[in-house]
Amino acid sequence: MKQNYKLRVIPLGGMGEVGKNLTVVEYRDDIVIIDCGMTFPEEDMPGIDVVIPDIDYLKKRKNKIRGIILTHGHEDHIGAIPYFLKQINTPVYGTRLTIALLENKLKEHRLLSKTKMVTVTPGKKYQLGKFEVEWISVNHSIPDACSLAINTPVGRVVHTGDFKIDFTPISGPVANLNRFAEIGNEGCLLLLSESTNILSEGFSMSERKVGETFDRIFSLKKNNRLIIATFASNVFRVQQIIQAAEKYNRKVVLSGRSMVNVTETAERLGYLKIKKGTIIDIKDMHRYKPNQLVLITTGSQGEPMSALTRISNDQHRRIKLAPNDTIILSANPIPGNENAVNGVINRLLERGAEVIYKSLSEIHVSGHAFQNEHKLLLSLLKPKYFVPCHGETRHLLKHAEVASDLGVPKKNIFVLYNGQCLELDQNKAQTVADVVSGPVFVDGLGIGDVGNIVLRDRKHLSEDGLIAVVIAMDSKQGKVVSGPDIISRGFVYVRESTDLMEKARNVVKESLNQCDKKHIKEWSTIKNNVRDDLRNYVYKKTGRNPMILPIIMDV
Amino acid sequence: MKQNYKLRVIPLGGMGEVGKNLTVVEYRDDIVIIDCGMTFPEEDMPGIDVVIPDIDYLKKRKNKIRGIILTHGHEDHIGAIPYFLKQINTPVYGTRLTIALLENKLKEHRLLSKTKMVTVTPGKKYQLGKFEVEWISVNHSIPDACSLAINTPVGRVVHTGDFKIDFTPISGPVANLNRFAEIGNEGCLLLLSESTNILSEGFSMSERKVGETFDRIFSLKKNNRLIIATFASNVFRVQQIIQAAEKYNRKVVLSGRSMVNVTETAERLGYLKIKKGTIIDIKDMHRYKPNQLVLITTGSQGEPMSALTRISNDQHRRIKLAPNDTIILSANPIPGNENAVNGVINRLLERGAEVIYKSLSEIHVSGHAFQNEHKLLLSLLKPKYFVPCHGETRHLLKHAEVASDLGVPKKNIFVLYNGQCLELDQNKAQTVADVVSGPVFVDGLGIGDVGNIVLRDRKHLSEDGLIAVVIAMDSKQGKVVSGPDIISRGFVYVRESTDLMEKARNVVKESLNQCDKKHIKEWSTIKNNVRDDLRNYVYKKTGRNPMILPIIMDV
Repeated sequence: MKQNYKLRVIPLGGMGEVGKNLTVVEYRDDIVIIDCGMTFPEEDMPGIDVVIPDIDYLKKRKNKIRGIILTHGHEDHIGAIPYFLKQINTPVYGTRLTIALLENKLKEHRLLSKTKMVTVTPGKKYQLGKFEVEWISVNHSIPDACSLAINTPVGRVVHTGDFKIDFTPISGPVANLNRFAEIGNEGCLLLLSESTNILSEGFSMSERKVGETFDRIFSLKKNNRLIIATFASNVFRVQQIIQAAEKYNRKVVLSGRSMVNVTETAERLGYLKIKKGTIIDIKDMHRYKPNQLVLITTGSQGEPMSALTRISNDQHRRIKLAPNDTIILSANPIPGNENAVNGVINRLLERGAEVIYKSLSEIHVSGHAFQNEHKLLLSLLKPKYFVPCHGETRHLLKHAEVASDLGVPKKNIFVLYNGQCLELDQNKAQTVADVVSGPVFVDGLGIGDVGNIVLRDRKHLSEDGLIAVVIAMDSKQGKVVSGPDIISRGFVYVRESTDLMEKARNVVKESLNQCDKKHIKEWSTIKNNVRDDLRNYVYKKTGRNPMILPIIMDV
Repeated sequence: MKQNYKLRVIPLGGMGEVGKNLTVVEYRDDIVIIDCGMTFPEEDMPGIDVVIPDIDYLKKRKNKIRGIILTHGHEDHIGAIPYFLKQINTPVYGTRLTIALLENKLKEHRLLSKTKMVTVTPGKKYQLGKFEVEWISVNHSIPDACSLAINTPVGRVVHTGDFKIDFTPISGPVANLNRFAEIGNEGCLLLLSESTNILSEGFSMSERKVGETFDRIFSLKKNNRLIIATFASNVFRVQQIIQAAEKYNRKVVLSGRSMVNVTETAERLGYLKIKKGTIIDIKDMHRYKPNQLVLITTGSQGEPMSALTRISNDQHRRIKLAPNDTIILSANPIPGNENAVNGVINRLLERGAEVIYKSLSEIHVSGHAFQNEHKLLLSLLKPKYFVPCHGETRHLLKHAEVASDLGVPKKNIFVLYNGQCLELDQNKAQTVADVVSGPVFVDGLGIGDVGNIVLRDRKHLSEDGLIAVVIAMDSKQGKVVSGPDIISRGFVYVRESTDLMEKARNVVKESLNQCDKKHIKEWSTIKNNVRDDLRNYVYKKTGRNPMILPIIMDV
């Protein structure tokens, strides 16, 4: 008898964006979730700390969920797990470092004891309901990154996770191309593949190149203190800095909370090889000459509160810039961070430091595959269906074009958006009705209680500030008892605008008089009249449109 | 008798930034002002429309001012003139197109009749007080751009303005290298030189290269409607698009207010050659097939209200995207605009259009000199003193290094900040006491009435919104008559948080009770207590820190 059930693949994040990756794989009564990431708020989301995917679809299918399967330990792949687990308890599967980084995170959220975590070994197979999941080693800017091969009742699904192919990795194996080739021979029904660098032609550089650059800089800058900013999670980069430090007899100081935490975890698990005595506490820094030191710090993206930004503003408690300091930014600005990063560079230069960034081209390499690596993977796997993921629309469309060039039929390529549902089996694939999806805002302790109305108000308040008009009324008599009083914030510098504020008060008085004359008693109507009259007056006088908040008190 | 008076050169804008260029040149009782530009607000200046230089120093020396001398007609060089002229009336000198663009601007501000404008001819000399000023043609991304050579009693000062060297310009002469060589031979005391592209090695490409790319695209895309976004003021770029349109028998539609205005002005003055009938009104667009049309539009920087952004959001009244539309972004994103530009590209792609950007490398060339052009100019002029300008710190320092490499003694190179005053004569140059300088914010009709306190409030309001607490009190009895009432905006979605707001009200009540018990009568103390108690409560419950505005009414 022919099987008629279909497999459903639903991205709830990561499509048309770089961030908050979450993909649902569902077959009848079983669901596995690939990654569960967060993203940082955009400029038009003031006050928001973190953005996570909407998991409404999953909350309604709690009983089907067999687990979250993780590709690697970056925030855009594991960052939403605490918020997820507070709503749905399910086991989490991942490789060793990935689980260790998740543990740190769950500890902070006090979820550690409640969560079942499974540390997986690449190459082994794990049964989650009807799905058999295998982790396949790939290269990336964090150790223990894997692609996933999922055997489903309708065929094999491969999700690349984030990957590159590094033939000379710092540690760990080269991406397991042989296993991809085997799967290609056995048959790959569907490939979901990341698209971050699909616009870059050729092959990405090996991480090892950066080490050669470090060696050159260390040998040139023998008289300088070195401060190197990079991503805390890039253990390979940190390893290469430490190696150079050991070769050139420098002590290493770690600066920035995440740098200390990740490095500690990575060393404990054996992902970092550090000689005894190489790392010293920041408090012992004064015992060494500047040119006996390397500082490894966070802040390569110009984050306002990061160690490097504080150093650049002379606000770091322990690290003060000195002549002969050489600062190396071993990272590229993520799009949107360019101004912040350039600002930090300028501040550092103004304090007399030397700054090495982009100008030396091999100070950073990307952890994401370039176009030819994608072509290689597509060639090995020969998927029947293809879904590009992990990218903006321009990346996804380009990736679709590349797959098409490599022989995947156009009708078998699906460029999905978040919430779109792909249904497929061996013979057919098609998109069906969308599911609920979208960004959920985390602000302080609140998850999802800030929505578009609140954000619209915040944007309005930030543009031209606020004018509050307070009136005390006797609701029985319908008469003004006191006021109007006018208070403004973020509108003008009040001490220099007493005249304007006094006239604004008269406008409100006149507005109230008019209401009285017309026997308007309805408070909402009075408020609207006051708001309209004052808005018009203020706009005419200042060209500004502050939020106007009329408040009537019943006395 | 030896002359002891010194020349003073004071940048009031343009140092450590790209924007609001203004440089004061002062000798005894004479001042000329080089350029008077604006800049756009940064992310941390919500609600601000435009930023201009502080001209306090000049207001106090009104009688000395002989005029503003302009290098070219870009906003960062002429944009602050209306605000300047409202405070100080002085003649303005510039080349023909520069003055014409300024006229458009002064018309809007109703300053045209009050302003004396002098159209200058490059090569001729103009006497302004003790200064003899000569405009020298250079190449740039707008016609009629010039450097300035100023003969002063202590020697010759050259200011490059914005420039590049284009050996094959679209129209107008090649930068007048011969004149620079002559001045070099005669003696150049001080060179102020722009630094925008000093980090780019080699020589910038000729504008003509972009025309070749247009030709290739027009010949390939015979079946598509073409929509090309570029800067309105880049008359050469517009000229090349029009030439391609005429060659391939397409009609041209201009879209965006500044595109229409600048193109009209440039054509009227003969800077643009357009065949009769090439340009059609946007209203007549429907009479032509899509592939008989080219649209030239503003919005290449992803500006929210621009024509291209509205097209990408399907909010343009007359231009609707269709299949077979090819959109070309003939501009690079200015740092900070990357996300906005990528957003527009993604929206356009989602609507099914083809978008050509960066991927074709010769779709845009910069209007600013690369490193080798700077080296050429330094070699020709052989200045005694050198001041890099028009750049962030990282550009200025690099330019200083380049000048030093080319033989300008390090002690003769001055990297200045805004407000720093360089005093010099034939024998000596040194910085002396700073003058008042800084950014002045324009918000609506207000110039300078929004300062740091107002901006700080706006930022606070945008982060977590506002809670207003209103209390009516009898000031004689010191008793609460009505309230407390609590109103919030931008804090939480109130309908889903009635419980929180009710408890907040109780917190305020308790706070007022405590004040009463302790016989606190001072309103400012009561307000502070209410604010502190409510802030602590709200932070504990939500992790947020909204602005809290206690208002007490006297009833």
